[in-house]
Amino acid sequence: MEKAELKKLIDVAAGRVPADLIIRGADVVDVFSGTVRKKDIVISGKWIAAVCDPSSAGENGGDPPRAGREEVDASGYTAIPGLIDSHIHIESSYVTPEEIGRLLVPHGTSMIFADPHEIVNVCGLRGLDYMNRASKQTKLDIRFMLPSCVPATPYEHSGSRLDAKDMVVPIRYPEIQGLGEFMDYTGVCSGADGALDKIILAKREGKLIDGHAPGLAGKELDAYASAGIFADHECATADDARERISRGMYVMIREGSACHDLKELMKAVTPENSSRFVLCSDDRQPATILSEGHIDSHLRMLTAGGIDSVTAVRMGTINAAQCFGLSDRGAIAPGRRADITLVNNLKDFQVHRVWIGGELVAEDGRYLPETRRTDISPVRGSIHIGDFSEEKLKMHLKNGHVRTMTICPGGVLTKEEFAEVKIDEEGNFVWDPQQDIAKIAVIERHHDTGNVATALIKGYGIRKGAIAMSIAHDSHNIITVGVSDDEMAAAVFALKEQEGGIVLVGNGQVIERMPMPVAGLMTDQSGEWVDRRLRRIHRTAHEELGVNGDVEPVMTLCFMSLAVIPELKLTDEGLFDVRKFEFTTVER
Amino acid sequence: MEKAELKKLIDVAAGRVPADLIIRGADVVDVFSGTVRKKDIVISGKWIAAVCDPSSAGENGGDPPRAGREEVDASGYTAIPGLIDSHIHIESSYVTPEEIGRLLVPHGTSMIFADPHEIVNVCGLRGLDYMNRASKQTKLDIRFMLPSCVPATPYEHSGSRLDAKDMVVPIRYPEIQGLGEFMDYTGVCSGADGALDKIILAKREGKLIDGHAPGLAGKELDAYASAGIFADHECATADDARERISRGMYVMIREGSACHDLKELMKAVTPENSSRFVLCSDDRQPATILSEGHIDSHLRMLTAGGIDSVTAVRMGTINAAQCFGLSDRGAIAPGRRADITLVNNLKDFQVHRVWIGGELVAEDGRYLPETRRTDISPVRGSIHIGDFSEEKLKMHLKNGHVRTMTICPGGVLTKEEFAEVKIDEEGNFVWDPQQDIAKIAVIERHHDTGNVATALIKGYGIRKGAIAMSIAHDSHNIITVGVSDDEMAAAVFALKEQEGGIVLVGNGQVIERMPMPVAGLMTDQSGEWVDRRLRRIHRTAHEELGVNGDVEPVMTLCFMSLAVIPELKLTDEGLFDVRKFEFTTVER
Repeated sequence: MEKAELKKLIDVAAGRVPADLIIRGADVVDVFSGTVRKKDIVISGKWIAAVCDPSSAGENGGDPPRAGREEVDASGYTAIPGLIDSHIHIESSYVTPEEIGRLLVPHGTSMIFADPHEIVNVCGLRGLDYMNRASKQTKLDIRFMLPSCVPATPYEHSGSRLDAKDMVVPIRYPEIQGLGEFMDYTGVCSGADGALDKIILAKREGKLIDGHAPGLAGKELDAYASAGIFADHECATADDARERISRGMYVMIREGSACHDLKELMKAVTPENSSRFVLCSDDRQPATILSEGHIDSHLRMLTAGGIDSVTAVRMGTINAAQCFGLSDRGAIAPGRRADITLVNNLKDFQVHRVWIGGELVAEDGRYLPETRRTDISPVRGSIHIGDFSEEKLKMHLKNGHVRTMTICPGGVLTKEEFAEVKIDEEGNFVWDPQQDIAKIAVIERHHDTGNVATALIKGYGIRKGAIAMSIAHDSHNIITVGVSDDEMAAAVFALKEQEGGIVLVGNGQVIERMPMPVAGLMTDQSGEWVDRRLRRIHRTAHEELGVNGDVEPVMTLCFMSLAVIPELKLTDEGLFDVRKFEFTTVER
Repeated sequence: MEKAELKKLIDVAAGRVPADLIIRGADVVDVFSGTVRKKDIVISGKWIAAVCDPSSAGENGGDPPRAGREEVDASGYTAIPGLIDSHIHIESSYVTPEEIGRLLVPHGTSMIFADPHEIVNVCGLRGLDYMNRASKQTKLDIRFMLPSCVPATPYEHSGSRLDAKDMVVPIRYPEIQGLGEFMDYTGVCSGADGALDKIILAKREGKLIDGHAPGLAGKELDAYASAGIFADHECATADDARERISRGMYVMIREGSACHDLKELMKAVTPENSSRFVLCSDDRQPATILSEGHIDSHLRMLTAGGIDSVTAVRMGTINAAQCFGLSDRGAIAPGRRADITLVNNLKDFQVHRVWIGGELVAEDGRYLPETRRTDISPVRGSIHIGDFSEEKLKMHLKNGHVRTMTICPGGVLTKEEFAEVKIDEEGNFVWDPQQDIAKIAVIERHHDTGNVATALIKGYGIRKGAIAMSIAHDSHNIITVGVSDDEMAAAVFALKEQEGGIVLVGNGQVIERMPMPVAGLMTDQSGEWVDRRLRRIHRTAHEELGVNGDVEPVMTLCFMSLAVIPELKLTDEGLFDVRKFEFTTVER
């Protein structure tokens, strides 16, 4: 804060000079006292100067009433602090930071803690720099966590690699709050050198270390918590939550497009421990944002589920500010940033107006500022597939006795199953309309290595053409599935041409596409466009290509390469058995 | 933390290597969940590795039980986190930092936030450096706040002056958590330049700014809070507390030797706002510490007063850690420092054992480590009274119609009263046994200016001899009161010879003394010695010199120069009318 800004703030608070804005007569949630009272909110520039009785004559009886250059009548509405998402991957919304701001702010969100794990896997620190620059074009306050596990596993080629030595400079950036979700919990719990170096670095710089520890319990969880990891968004059960809270970790209640933990985790909330819960979405697609909202939707669900509404508001505001050590956020109180969300009431949380830093930025669902776009050229052209050709998709099976990655619909797990499939004279897999088994391939796309690995997927349902995508967790190589090598190759080449994204091929032709020029992960389009296009892609995949009705064609595919989720996954280096943590063969 | 230390901590937590210490079977207070459960506390070096069920076989059923190189049976006791005093002036205990550690630690205190306001007023940053070095000789973790208001007022000579420019370097010291109590609330609320410079500096360096705002309310309190001041220990009423909490400030519940706010302030505590309260002592003399304790005594009082005992423990532990932004303190949980206090129960809070950083440092009231003393020579020899002589104590009154500073027993306020006194032919005051009015003088003692100011004090009761002290808030010039100029002068010269402290003169001779070679503010003796000597001084003052029974002879005198507390006070520059903020005359 500049001195003149502080001086003016104090002068406005003291009533010596008029406020820039007074929001009059709202029922204001006081997150510190746990009360809701009719108040005037007095604002100077970006900051809240005072929250005072609307009774006109000021608190000291004889004082003249406060005046504002602008005054807003908010009676009938309830004012809550700007909402905070404690853990989100912007990339998972397939839109850029500017656009995520346009989507989230009308839902009352003023701040998010984004982990640019996906783009950094592809582009390294260049990806972080792009995200950081782009985030300056939105009123949403986007803070970043430095991705801690790039690559996520050593069993694949990623676009980049971040060791502790590479983090020394970026960990100090003011926008960086700390290390992002430490997915390598095995490394932490075993005290592996590389993990320790990163943790020591973050501690030395006074930065936070976020967690990711699905299923961890007992001594392993002790080991993880003892390293100083401050939060976890991977609790699946109320007991998971309780165990983490007892160990001093914050629990991030996640409600995303794919993962729905809120209803289970709210069972763990008590008046005694509620201050240790914060809210997050992790991954939230435009369709979910447009239809259900963002953290406002968490508040509706929590309140509907019986959590006291002020407690719910706290989880999405002051608790998050405390959890991240920010003293100027999370509350409507003097000296805090004027991030204020007006809702109709504390049950429906229908957002009427949103101020961020004292500026009205959204009204009745519309984001008001003009959205300027950041130059994406530094993160374009990310598809480097070397000498890829249809030939490389050929399998050379010795026989038709194979293991398949079998999809578990509605989740990201696979099962290992066994089957008999047709092969041609060269040992290549031949798709058979009689059984729901198709070829799947991962093509390295970062370093022109020409690496291609193939396997067989069961339960996806494709009966025609091919699908290819450059979103494939966490290294984001190209993943493709199809009934013929030539259509799979066509999809891959089309993907390269459009700089990544999603391509659907039918009858040898591209029949649907979503270009993602931003690192092959994000479109440069609006959330609404993404939503419409994704619906079309889903429809086409189901109706034209025959993908099974209970399979989400895009999301399912993009997790088939994530070699930390059991049982079988495919990376550009081969078929991986996650249970044994080793590569295996297609032939059983 | 070093890497090897982190590695070992994780290994111990994971159960791969034996713990250094296991405290077995205590009822452990979980400040996060608000529960109390029988647990084993597993410690690696300075750190807590795990808090686990004592059921032996470990959490995962088949795991072998954890082993410790040392094991302590704590069954029957309750373990709470090490206690934290959020605001204290060590100097007010008249002992050095090493000694305050020896006194406080056996009461379960592991950390204090000390504002070395007094010694910095006398010695400047040299005083801070001494305190900092001395604090390294005790196991008590002493963090410092950089005194924000030196001198406290412009109406006197202090030993030093700290403007924002002088703070640029020390504010960055790792031991410095922020700016100490911002007593110049007038400066803050009026937006005075010097105050703003200090606030901007602290904000820029990411440091806290502590408050001191007695009686501030309404718009003035808004102005004060809007500047970002995070806490206040000067709440006199429950309403004061509520007003500050609503404005986002922490309330420090003070219970010191002189100020007793706890019983009133606990009325403001609710389950909704209790996380915003922390505990402090501000000023606590050895007599109080030895007879009543420290923060443990706050806990007894809170619990006796009906506050839930876990809530009380939180105020003295995790709330303080959160308030100061320390993520490794305030809880018995993995990754936190092993600061653990064993008490008999959550009602009496009788402290049995205390570990700080995993080391047993106190047992049944005894501080166990050897106390090494820091060299005090850099802060010795602080009495510089220039050409002081008895002659300078002479008053030159034009007549006997005078105003008196009249003591209000039991407090630090004075009233202005008027009287008729005897004067000699030169206009000097002549003590009259018929009325309780004595001469009082303040002698500048920092810069050899030779400044002496005199006035008349009523209600102190002295009937014989003189008393002189080098503790006189906040500039700590010499203050003396007596019935004759020669005895007052004798007391002053004796004070110089003993390098400050307290001197009592009767019949022209020194009859009692407490030398305070450390900046004229602290003894180099034990707390027990200070307690005994102070009792003797009180007895001698009352019995030999005739000081009124309802007047605390030392404490009363040392506040007679504090020119911010109404109505009349005396500085080395003259008699000051605090109500008008201007100097006045002894003659009415």
